[in-house]
Amino acid sequence: MDNNFLGHHISQQFNVELEDIRTRVLSMGGLVEQQIHDAITALVAADTDLAKNVVKNDVKVNAFEVSIDEECARILARRQPAASDLRLVVAVIKTITDLERIGDEAEKVARMAVELADLERPRTQYHETQSLGEHVQSMLHGALDAFARMDVEAALKVAKEDESVDHEYEGILRQQITHMMEDPRSIKRAMDVIWALRALERIGDHSKNICEYIIYLVKGKDVRHLGLQEMEKEVVEE
Amino acid sequence: MDNNFLGHHISQQFNVELEDIRTRVLSMGGLVEQQIHDAITALVAADTDLAKNVVKNDVKVNAFEVSIDEECARILARRQPAASDLRLVVAVIKTITDLERIGDEAEKVARMAVELADLERPRTQYHETQSLGEHVQSMLHGALDAFARMDVEAALKVAKEDESVDHEYEGILRQQITHMMEDPRSIKRAMDVIWALRALERIGDHSKNICEYIIYLVKGKDVRHLGLQEMEKEVVEE
Repeated sequence: MDNNFLGHHISQQFNVELEDIRTRVLSMGGLVEQQIHDAITALVAADTDLAKNVVKNDVKVNAFEVSIDEECARILARRQPAASDLRLVVAVIKTITDLERIGDEAEKVARMAVELADLERPRTQYHETQSLGEHVQSMLHGALDAFARMDVEAALKVAKEDESVDHEYEGILRQQITHMMEDPRSIKRAMDVIWALRALERIGDHSKNICEYIIYLVKGKDVRHLGLQEMEKEVVEE
Repeated sequence: MDNNFLGHHISQQFNVELEDIRTRVLSMGGLVEQQIHDAITALVAADTDLAKNVVKNDVKVNAFEVSIDEECARILARRQPAASDLRLVVAVIKTITDLERIGDEAEKVARMAVELADLERPRTQYHETQSLGEHVQSMLHGALDAFARMDVEAALKVAKEDESVDHEYEGILRQQITHMMEDPRSIKRAMDVIWALRALERIGDHSKNICEYIIYLVKGKDVRHLGLQEMEKEVVEE
């Protein structure tokens, strides 16, 4: 009975550790969401201080990645998890890499916000950039929410959204290139906008990656590089 | 004695498995190197067939990633590796993610090669793009070589090279933007070139990431997000 209790206790403690890394991934995700939000706000409002703050805060995102990574390595070494516990740890290791890269993309948007703050504003007031930004923000939010609830159907829905983000991105990109051709004096500004757009589009890709890890984690099936239809089949199949 | 033999045998078998994933990472790396080489050649020589071949071959890169990932998960579950064995598996999981993304970047270069093949060629004959391409190819080659030999000093040397790649990239980028301003008819071509350059620059970043995993693997120390000087200190310290 003592043994049983001990076994129970160890397993309880292990559960606490797994719960802890999940919580920390969500905290890291919350920080990264805030970074994107601030970077876009800074760009649209020409708020250089806010933009510089985003650049400065990227070290916090990086610190999260390093510390969660260390915790995962410790769990792998000490707990030797199997089956779904193991998949959770592997999925977390991959997820935080994507979150860290999303942080880098937010930083790029913030750097462009600093550049753009000194330039004449376009008539559109960066409306399209903001709109794409909100689109990928909602993708990331959905991905983190699906992660919190281990909800594969929600994950699939978010993954599907990436196509629509790509479509929106390509449309705005074409507009920017047309502007450059019509008014070569706008080239400097258009290029800065294009780098920001590109960073936002990448955030969509990374959010989709996170959704794929959730499906792997819950279903035990690697759905990367599958088409959306096949991915859907994996999710629906019991 | 039987037990000892069994122990020895299991460990032997485990060594074989670890050696096998290392070999497969190097095979995947070799394929990715070939993809970059072909993509750059296709761009410079306006060889659309070769470019389309690179795009087609990206599935092979993806298949490598999925299969090595599965093998790593199997090893984690069955062998419960500790210490440097565990770090090897974690480093491999991360390395193949970067190799897969390098493959994606090579595919982007190849797609731009297809676009550019139909456009008038610049006087420079894409000389600078080729030069940047060779630079990042040599970085990746160095990173894979350092991985094969577990050579942290070589890894540090390659990681340092990324700064020089970034510098070269920024120079060529400025040239392209100047061209666009001087001759707005060249904007379409310049943008295609810029996407190819950007993809090459990213290959440098991913190669640097791989070097950081090698240092982590050998030294047990996470050197991501450290400056180069601190990274050097970690490598030199015994």
